[in-house]
Amino acid sequence: MNAQAQAYKEKYDQAFSMEKFFNPSSVVVIGASNAPFNLGATICKVLTEDIDYPGQVYAVNRSGENVFGAQGMRTLDDIPEPVDLAVMITPAFVVAEFVRKCGEKGIRNIIIESSGFSEQGAEGRILQKDVNDAAHLYRIRIIGPNGLGIMDNYSRFCSMYGSSHLAPLAVRHPGFVSYVVQSGGIAGLIVERLMEDVSGINKIVSLGNKTDLDEADFIDYFDTDRTKVIALYLEGVDDGRKLMQAVRRTKKPVLVYKSGKSEAGSAAIVSHTAGMAQNDAVFDGACRQAGMIRLKTPEELCVLPKIFTEMPLLSGKRIAVFTNSGGVGTIGADMLEETPLVMAPFSEETKAKLKKLPGVFNASNPVDIGPAPPEIYLAIYNILLEAEEVDGILNMVNIWRDYVIDVMEALIKLCRKHRKPASLYAFSALERLRVLQLEKGLPLFGTAEDAVRALVVSHQQFCYLIKKETV
Amino acid sequence: MNAQAQAYKEKYDQAFSMEKFFNPSSVVVIGASNAPFNLGATICKVLTEDIDYPGQVYAVNRSGENVFGAQGMRTLDDIPEPVDLAVMITPAFVVAEFVRKCGEKGIRNIIIESSGFSEQGAEGRILQKDVNDAAHLYRIRIIGPNGLGIMDNYSRFCSMYGSSHLAPLAVRHPGFVSYVVQSGGIAGLIVERLMEDVSGINKIVSLGNKTDLDEADFIDYFDTDRTKVIALYLEGVDDGRKLMQAVRRTKKPVLVYKSGKSEAGSAAIVSHTAGMAQNDAVFDGACRQAGMIRLKTPEELCVLPKIFTEMPLLSGKRIAVFTNSGGVGTIGADMLEETPLVMAPFSEETKAKLKKLPGVFNASNPVDIGPAPPEIYLAIYNILLEAEEVDGILNMVNIWRDYVIDVMEALIKLCRKHRKPASLYAFSALERLRVLQLEKGLPLFGTAEDAVRALVVSHQQFCYLIKKETV
Repeated sequence: MNAQAQAYKEKYDQAFSMEKFFNPSSVVVIGASNAPFNLGATICKVLTEDIDYPGQVYAVNRSGENVFGAQGMRTLDDIPEPVDLAVMITPAFVVAEFVRKCGEKGIRNIIIESSGFSEQGAEGRILQKDVNDAAHLYRIRIIGPNGLGIMDNYSRFCSMYGSSHLAPLAVRHPGFVSYVVQSGGIAGLIVERLMEDVSGINKIVSLGNKTDLDEADFIDYFDTDRTKVIALYLEGVDDGRKLMQAVRRTKKPVLVYKSGKSEAGSAAIVSHTAGMAQNDAVFDGACRQAGMIRLKTPEELCVLPKIFTEMPLLSGKRIAVFTNSGGVGTIGADMLEETPLVMAPFSEETKAKLKKLPGVFNASNPVDIGPAPPEIYLAIYNILLEAEEVDGILNMVNIWRDYVIDVMEALIKLCRKHRKPASLYAFSALERLRVLQLEKGLPLFGTAEDAVRALVVSHQQFCYLIKKETV
Repeated sequence: MNAQAQAYKEKYDQAFSMEKFFNPSSVVVIGASNAPFNLGATICKVLTEDIDYPGQVYAVNRSGENVFGAQGMRTLDDIPEPVDLAVMITPAFVVAEFVRKCGEKGIRNIIIESSGFSEQGAEGRILQKDVNDAAHLYRIRIIGPNGLGIMDNYSRFCSMYGSSHLAPLAVRHPGFVSYVVQSGGIAGLIVERLMEDVSGINKIVSLGNKTDLDEADFIDYFDTDRTKVIALYLEGVDDGRKLMQAVRRTKKPVLVYKSGKSEAGSAAIVSHTAGMAQNDAVFDGACRQAGMIRLKTPEELCVLPKIFTEMPLLSGKRIAVFTNSGGVGTIGADMLEETPLVMAPFSEETKAKLKKLPGVFNASNPVDIGPAPPEIYLAIYNILLEAEEVDGILNMVNIWRDYVIDVMEALIKLCRKHRKPASLYAFSALERLRVLQLEKGLPLFGTAEDAVRALVVSHQQFCYLIKKETV
């Protein structure tokens, strides 16, 4: 370290804090300008125009010009105050130099969005090593390179370039699910999918090449904040032991979709974010050992969290299927058979109670009713939730009258009271429910398959928790 | 036959014709009245108020009262003209007598929607046999009992009770997919799911207990009309040989979802539509032999037809994955690996052509591009479709600019020209695309999984066709 660096360091030595990534009181976007197609400009726009980020935004560029509402500066030194976070979106070859300058300025949190590092071969790997060395010197922590950084719907901070359309939608619907993704495209996918879903997003972090901070660091962090569900989209795992230890430490559900299972997929990843696809079976076993729920499709990252945020965990395998449209109960029974869950065998007492109700076509499992008033629905829900032999309900309904929506709302309350979950699937009035689900807080699944999967993962988490608590 | 019946028979003997179920010039709803909760009344309402059915509607009830726009009659004999079709929704025990009266009136087409037949045990089976005997005597053909009959979006005819909300939506969006379902709830599910989909419905028939006409009869019928895809939701198959022979006869794709695979599901079906669940593996083998595409979920009945109505068949297994968002290409590669399809290995020539284009990050498969203008997309699509080693495209795009929608429209045309299909998956602008897909004729899939499945079933149909043509 030269003497000048030492001087700056002493003057501005700020400690790194994870919090400054998500809730910085000031941020500088290095490389943002008014040149056409400048990506940094889109970040300045999001922060100063689209989502009312309450902190101070600076832009560093050659001419020191303002970019949207961001105050323009020629150099970091020109910024009159300490800065919590730097976001870099410059050509790769100048990044390391800017990291050093950030260090001198006292910045300890950097998001590097530039590409051109280890994902682009030998030359890029050298550049990435330069970045690491510079960061190490100043005890700087890095997200990226080649990632989009952060979206935080409570602090209203977003570092993701090109998110002018998405970020405003996301901050309007904050929630309790936090996401770790590698590539930015996936973050966009998540925001869009959850727009009308009952689960909203707390935070998203897009990691890119993970030259420093990785998924394990963010699992630990999300274990400490308002997050209720941690969801990971991984393209590769560099330090499996670290990941699994972080998973073991948290009692929040951790869901993971891992791509790059196939050979072709792995090849695509190497060129894309420089991850290394691991042996898939090994990863699968590690997930089960550590207590991480492995997902089958990327969409499940968006669809499944609501069973955790809105419903008690499923503490046993025995499911009662309920429907007001006979054929559909069969779908539920069939789908359950392909899972570790089972159709609850009803006791004679339960059957007798159901038979007494008018309109009940089938008093065994699946329960099937004809046209019946709301009281009958509620009576059935109560009988099922009180039955010792039923651990949860798969509710598959036709919204043939509006009150079927109301009884679903009542069912949610009953579930919380009885500490047993119901998985809700409606197969009519879809357009109306799409709007209503958020207003009424209905954790609705779009397909019977998803509704069944939700029960499966809920029980999986229950078992993992038991294991974590006893170990 | 008594002398009177003989006399009526001679006077009114009309021939049965399948066409009269779908496009009757007159219909009588037997059992429709203005009593509260009368189901027949909902049929009269749909026909005379909701969908502008152009034919004459009569209602037969004790007081001979009009029901909505249906002209009330005390008996069938009071109707002053011959009637093409009778729809019955009376208590089960009077149905056989009404069938006889229909016979005397010269009606040869009857839809029986009443329940209380073989699905309800021994007594019901006797009633159903009475119905069959009566029908046999007059050479009447029956849909049902315990089914909802017909919806035809071109003739604007619908016999389904309780469809006041759905039928108007369906007739507004006629198309080329025809459905055979057993229970009516499934028909509702299909109409709702397809409301904004590029494939519309031609006809739906809900079979119920299938005491006479069954799925095979309707496959034969749909083979003769404007239907492009035949889709079946079956709860049980009574005559497997008849079904498979009908499948073998048609060159239109036949998709089937069969429920009742599980023991619990089968039990539910017996009480629901009196079907018998068959050994699942036997059914699976029969499908493959006859050339019927077996679906994994009921939703696939709605999602998959568009790959047949909008795209050429996939004549080989080699797929090129294209994305403008790196991580997403990996998902495609991974998902293809779990199917019989493969990632197309690009020739050096194809790679060289792709490498020449600016903005191409990865010139091998999956092709991955960065921010690029529409010309580049089109150039890539042309290179891929012209490549001898590519049989089809999996297009996975982020709608980061509106022109990505336009290039998808162009891609569809290119596909038709090159006789190779593309499966379209977009993971942003979902809300906008939901509306646009119909307007622009985009066969868009809602998940990457569905997009991949579409290619799989397209190739399956290609292979079935080859087999059907060579046998």
